[in-house]
Amino acid sequence: MTTSRADRLAILYDIGRTINSSLDPEEVLNLVMDKVVQVVRAERGFLMLSDERTGRLEFRVARNMDRQAIESTAFQVSRSITEGVAASGEPLLTTDALFDERFSSSASVVSYGLRSVMCTPLRSRGRITGVVYVDNRLQSGIFHQEDLDLLVAVADQAAIAIENARLYDTLRQQYEGMIQSLVEAIDARDRYTKRHSGRVTGYAMSIVAASSLPAKEAEALRHAAVLHDVGKIGVPEAILNKRGPLTDAEFARMKAHVLIGVDIVSPVASLADLIPLIRHHHELYDGSGYPDGVRGEAIPRGARILCVADSFDAMTTDRPYRPAKTVEEARAELRRCAGTQFDPAVVEAFLSSSERASTGSAS
Amino acid sequence: MTTSRADRLAILYDIGRTINSSLDPEEVLNLVMDKVVQVVRAERGFLMLSDERTGRLEFRVARNMDRQAIESTAFQVSRSITEGVAASGEPLLTTDALFDERFSSSASVVSYGLRSVMCTPLRSRGRITGVVYVDNRLQSGIFHQEDLDLLVAVADQAAIAIENARLYDTLRQQYEGMIQSLVEAIDARDRYTKRHSGRVTGYAMSIVAASSLPAKEAEALRHAAVLHDVGKIGVPEAILNKRGPLTDAEFARMKAHVLIGVDIVSPVASLADLIPLIRHHHELYDGSGYPDGVRGEAIPRGARILCVADSFDAMTTDRPYRPAKTVEEARAELRRCAGTQFDPAVVEAFLSSSERASTGSAS
Repeated sequence: MTTSRADRLAILYDIGRTINSSLDPEEVLNLVMDKVVQVVRAERGFLMLSDERTGRLEFRVARNMDRQAIESTAFQVSRSITEGVAASGEPLLTTDALFDERFSSSASVVSYGLRSVMCTPLRSRGRITGVVYVDNRLQSGIFHQEDLDLLVAVADQAAIAIENARLYDTLRQQYEGMIQSLVEAIDARDRYTKRHSGRVTGYAMSIVAASSLPAKEAEALRHAAVLHDVGKIGVPEAILNKRGPLTDAEFARMKAHVLIGVDIVSPVASLADLIPLIRHHHELYDGSGYPDGVRGEAIPRGARILCVADSFDAMTTDRPYRPAKTVEEARAELRRCAGTQFDPAVVEAFLSSSERASTGSAS
Repeated sequence: MTTSRADRLAILYDIGRTINSSLDPEEVLNLVMDKVVQVVRAERGFLMLSDERTGRLEFRVARNMDRQAIESTAFQVSRSITEGVAASGEPLLTTDALFDERFSSSASVVSYGLRSVMCTPLRSRGRITGVVYVDNRLQSGIFHQEDLDLLVAVADQAAIAIENARLYDTLRQQYEGMIQSLVEAIDARDRYTKRHSGRVTGYAMSIVAASSLPAKEAEALRHAAVLHDVGKIGVPEAILNKRGPLTDAEFARMKAHVLIGVDIVSPVASLADLIPLIRHHHELYDGSGYPDGVRGEAIPRGARILCVADSFDAMTTDRPYRPAKTVEEARAELRRCAGTQFDPAVVEAFLSSSERASTGSAS
């Protein structure tokens, strides 16, 4: 029972759509393996990827067999097939293992009931990035050349889908790493600012939990909270750590930190959503803040949230120029300034969320 | 004359391989367009991609027609087809434009000799990312359903290849942006360090030009040169800008900048190659440097190059604690310390390259 050519074309369309539907590398591998065994009607199979550093084939996913079986001595012949295919880049088909001298002497033929084997490389931009292995066709037990053609076509699509998911993953990791790198830069400059940023992030996220922010906006806010004071790298430490009130000139240097922060994140396109939040986190609801003196809803919502979180943390920690307020005093201050300095809806969300938190921790 | 199903499967394999062979987004678009007109034997065609911000279709590449024609009034019917296909997500085939009411009244049928049209969406992870349009089959002039099937299959492969190239591009841009972001952070802290890093990069690259460094190593060196002093963000400005010699304790704080620099770049996996260069750029050839006191060839080559470039720039610029040496004095100093402080081969490469540069600028 063979598949018609027309069916095969349709199968390939379907596979491309399916395996490209996910961005999660593990999910893509599972979709690929499902499709592979389904399309060539294999009894079982597995997929290996080359480790990017060592170049060694690593087991990644299987159907109807497990890693232990694949790594056992009895299965050594299949492993040497995968290595040969990865090294040569040539697909392999053995129609009947019982009559193939590469197999007939192997224990696998008996212990795993090996009858017919196909293996083909995964290839991306000329490099071999892994292999797909299947054995034993359902019903007949035997694979033919047209099954191998189909497997090769699926493998080509799979390789690019796997690479694609990996690229998204790398991009995300690079993004997270970049933010962490700037956090290290803040920390090198000023330990207080790093710890402060961590607490502000916590407060901002508890406000998010008590509000209804779209996921993308909440994500930008989380990263902006971590980096909101990155511009303090550019403020002289004599001003940052001054005991006593700042002169007008010193306060002007201090205020510049919001614009310096914008300069630092601006070169990275993927941080663009953070710019308005970093720029405006010292704007006040009545328009009396800086750098632009915008007011009310004209201040980006994330910046209004940051402002409350930032102010609460500043009030509740000791600074060189004054001791900390108590939590109750700080909450009263937020309440008192809701509608003037602070967005009242944000203050409400913060007070209700921290009410729950303090009730929780007291119990 | 139709293509057999078997040929079509072979064509699809070939296309996947071809369009996935490049990482350059423009080249991928050109490969796709070449393959599209070749495979469906179209007289001409074009490809549009959705702008990521506006969502609008933007013309990207064509074969046997130009942007001007596509944007002319006479061609409006084809543009409205592309918009319809992008909006509906459904492929479109019109077998004979002369007898199709969507076309027969249009000037294009006459002025562009339109006979038969196919258009299909490019789709990636469920989103429509563009469209491919072709018209007029070579010889017969007319496309049939099987031509559309093939175009749809090619478009599926093309969409993922285009996305893949775009991802590589984004990753590269994010990498460059990240380095620029750290440069801005250095600049916010200390103007001198940013300008110094720029000059050191220039000297390091002239040493590379006079040596034989693998491209990957040269690239890592270039970025390490830009970032070698990023750790100075963590050195108090009273020490950075002190007039007069540093105390032992102050010098210890200053020396820490190489390790702070490592801490700052370490969270980013793609900056891993820079770590040994940043860490070791103050090691000296005779083992008397810091932080580890390694010597000779045990110091990474890029770090030995950075050390010479860094020292030359430090000698030839005014510092708070001493005036600049002349270029000739600094060159003599490098020569004198070749084999003790500096790798003699690196000094040789630097002197010969700057000899050429100064001869060039004197002429």
